[in-house]
Amino acid sequence: MRHFEQELEKLKSKLLEMSALVESAVYRSVQGVVEKNEELAQQVLRNEGRINDLEIEIDELAISLLALQAPLAADLRLVTAAIKINNDLERMGDLSVSIAQCAMALMKEPVIRPLIDIPHIAGLAQSMVRKALDSFVNRDADLARSVLASDDAVDNMRTASYHELISFMENNPSQIGQALYLLSVVRNLERIADHSTNIAEDVLFLVKGIDVRHHNEDRTRRGDELAESA
Amino acid sequence: MRHFEQELEKLKSKLLEMSALVESAVYRSVQGVVEKNEELAQQVLRNEGRINDLEIEIDELAISLLALQAPLAADLRLVTAAIKINNDLERMGDLSVSIAQCAMALMKEPVIRPLIDIPHIAGLAQSMVRKALDSFVNRDADLARSVLASDDAVDNMRTASYHELISFMENNPSQIGQALYLLSVVRNLERIADHSTNIAEDVLFLVKGIDVRHHNEDRTRRGDELAESA
Repeated sequence: MRHFEQELEKLKSKLLEMSALVESAVYRSVQGVVEKNEELAQQVLRNEGRINDLEIEIDELAISLLALQAPLAADLRLVTAAIKINNDLERMGDLSVSIAQCAMALMKEPVIRPLIDIPHIAGLAQSMVRKALDSFVNRDADLARSVLASDDAVDNMRTASYHELISFMENNPSQIGQALYLLSVVRNLERIADHSTNIAEDVLFLVKGIDVRHHNEDRTRRGDELAESA
Repeated sequence: MRHFEQELEKLKSKLLEMSALVESAVYRSVQGVVEKNEELAQQVLRNEGRINDLEIEIDELAISLLALQAPLAADLRLVTAAIKINNDLERMGDLSVSIAQCAMALMKEPVIRPLIDIPHIAGLAQSMVRKALDSFVNRDADLARSVLASDDAVDNMRTASYHELISFMENNPSQIGQALYLLSVVRNLERIADHSTNIAEDVLFLVKGIDVRHHNEDRTRRGDELAESA
């Protein structure tokens, strides 16, 4: 194996390590909200530093690969894709931290009804993180496409949750603060799904050379306007 | 001038063109909300395609620079920073589109009180976009630092707006839908400011070699929890 390929394998395995951390942060932060599990929420806050350190490490590795090996064409695109994916993963880590902060704020409050869909949205968002990274590592276009399909499902679930939460607030004005935390959890999960979609789009570009990065503009114009923009 | 330097100048000027488009999208989308100016909001929706096309163009230019010139050390970091900045700018364009969508949804509704701070937050966010890009093009560390300071100001204004909007909703449950659009506008402006901060952090790393990307973690832990995570 060429030295370049060894370094590339190292880059991929660091990205997988990063995505495993992010996936578990998503899971733990949501368990913090749904099960009022304070320990899991705290773990997410404690692990943020590891994700941030790994982001810097991966960036350095990618830049040194570019500097020392001066790769051409396909390998070059792979390394620049890795830089973008790294950025997306770090943002997902931040979003999990936001969810964990919501969990902490809600810890002492009684459970309110409309959180019923949160575990489903979270499960889907979490599996999108893993599939997006697997599609990158294995150059699997079909798997990348399945991530795009899941994104549509997340959007629909989020729209339904928004409507549910808004009517809950109208009927229970004294619990608006609490409901806004849940709205925030749903929105953060949706943004995690969006980042996975970005990764899947980068993978499709890498594997097929098709630019689908702005594929879903027409789609997003249609849906519920409040949900789209809130 | 070497060919590489010419290409680098082209890359910088494309990024400046992109940031000018984003800056005007921020301005127009907020005028759409504040002045109920439908034409300006529509312009933002129409211009989204140009920003997306420019993102792809800049990426291609950066990748061809890496491929054809195989730059070393400092130049390499400059090009990889450009790839990241490009990504941040495109996201800011998306956030302006979200604000324009809120503007359209609010177009027919009567003006409600708590939007008083939105023009201030917007003015600050807009100037952060320009300063961040100027600091990149001119390698100006002081200007980059001033962006980080503005980010703190935006965070404080946002926290105040959140509290104002929440008590408005508690007192006017029938206008929760409308208030949530305004909450969304404030949040999107805050995220635009965050992206400018990312760019400024990349510039400081580029110019000074100091990694400040995760400089503000302690800071964000302090503030108002709801505002932080909502």
